Amino acid sequence: MTPERKAKFESVLSHRQPDLTIVLENVFDPHNISAVMRTCDAVGVQDIYILNTRIPRHKKWGTKSSSSAAKWLTVHQFEDLDACVAQLRSRYKRILTTHLSSDAVSLHHIDFTDSIALVFGNEHSGVTDEMRALADGNFIIPQVGIIRSLNISVACAVTLYEAFRQKNEAGFYAQRRMEDEQYHHLMEEWKGWNARAEAQNGEED
Amino acid sequence: MTPERKAKFESVLSHRQPDLTIVLENVFDPHNISAVMRTCDAVGVQDIYILNTRIPRHKKWGTKSSSSAAKWLTVHQFEDLDACVAQLRSRYKRILTTHLSSDAVSLHHIDFTDSIALVFGNEHSGVTDEMRALADGNFIIPQVGIIRSLNISVACAVTLYEAFRQKNEAGFYAQRRMEDEQYHHLMEEWKGWNARAEAQNGEED
Repeated sequence: MTPERKAKFESVLSHRQPDLTIVLENVFDPHNISAVMRTCDAVGVQDIYILNTRIPRHKKWGTKSSSSAAKWLTVHQFEDLDACVAQLRSRYKRILTTHLSSDAVSLHHIDFTDSIALVFGNEHSGVTDEMRALADGNFIIPQVGIIRSLNISVACAVTLYEAFRQKNEAGFYAQRRMEDEQYHHLMEEWKGWNARAEAQNGEED
Repeated sequence: MTPERKAKFESVLSHRQPDLTIVLENVFDPHNISAVMRTCDAVGVQDIYILNTRIPRHKKWGTKSSSSAAKWLTVHQFEDLDACVAQLRSRYKRILTTHLSSDAVSLHHIDFTDSIALVFGNEHSGVTDEMRALADGNFIIPQVGIIRSLNISVACAVTLYEAFRQKNEAGFYAQRRMEDEQYHHLMEEWKGWNARAEAQNGEED
């Protein structure tokens, strides 16, 4: 591995934010999932949850393509809502969904310096009632136009960059926040990806 | 037109922001353009510039589909860079591009309470050198991940929602900002769309 590549891995891992995650509940379109993963990578979200209780487990997004963000993220797949929420509860203080509801708060009023898991639902039916019942609240992305629907990848990007802005202002990107164990584990995994990619065709992401 | 529909039109037009626009320079994919238009509508950007100096004029995004955001926006099409920039100069104080460069400022350091036009470039080659030479500066969306490229529709949404956040905090959505002439002109146009849509199948956006 080149010193530049190693420095990039160190920099990226040092900017990951262990207290922020995205949950995609029954999100159907693999392109939406891929797009969300790219934004997770871009803002430093390492862990992402794919919860499929009403649609089959996804096969399409994978770790094969070097341009796929999936291999730089820790992807947790669940088919059971309670098991998923139990793991989220053990790792994050709050769970917020994006379902429209009267008690929804605006994105810009969420405190992203606190530990949080953000749930985005199916393209058509949104977050399930069961998930909403287990979550701590809802938030909405304010909209003032004629058409009141944003694509999931757009909604998620807008949300994640508001989190980035707040966390950056609070100094969360100024020093490594990931625990040593996860840091070293991921560094070894990434070195492995890198070696395999170089062996194949010298490709770099 | 129902009173509810009229009230919605009034509300939407009252939230439009005349001092903010998006310029898509040689953006190739009609899906990207459509996605950007939806976000423009969502945050209250009425005017959008489609500047094609190196690719053919688009035909695909149009006003046929009721779900298209294009018909709720004022779309300015140009094939000549100088003519486009001249019109932008007459309407907006600053022109910023998204090209990566050493003098780029971070998105979150832009003052969006000031009048501004934001230029996004081609999916592969970015903003042209000619446009950059005529613009007032560049900005970048901060990224801390492995993969350093965001889709145009995502980058534009993240940018427009930062503009929304700042303008909303500054009270820009609290009262109508559009001039009477444009307001009444658009209201008549939208009433026309609405009448045609109702005549067809009663569809609503």
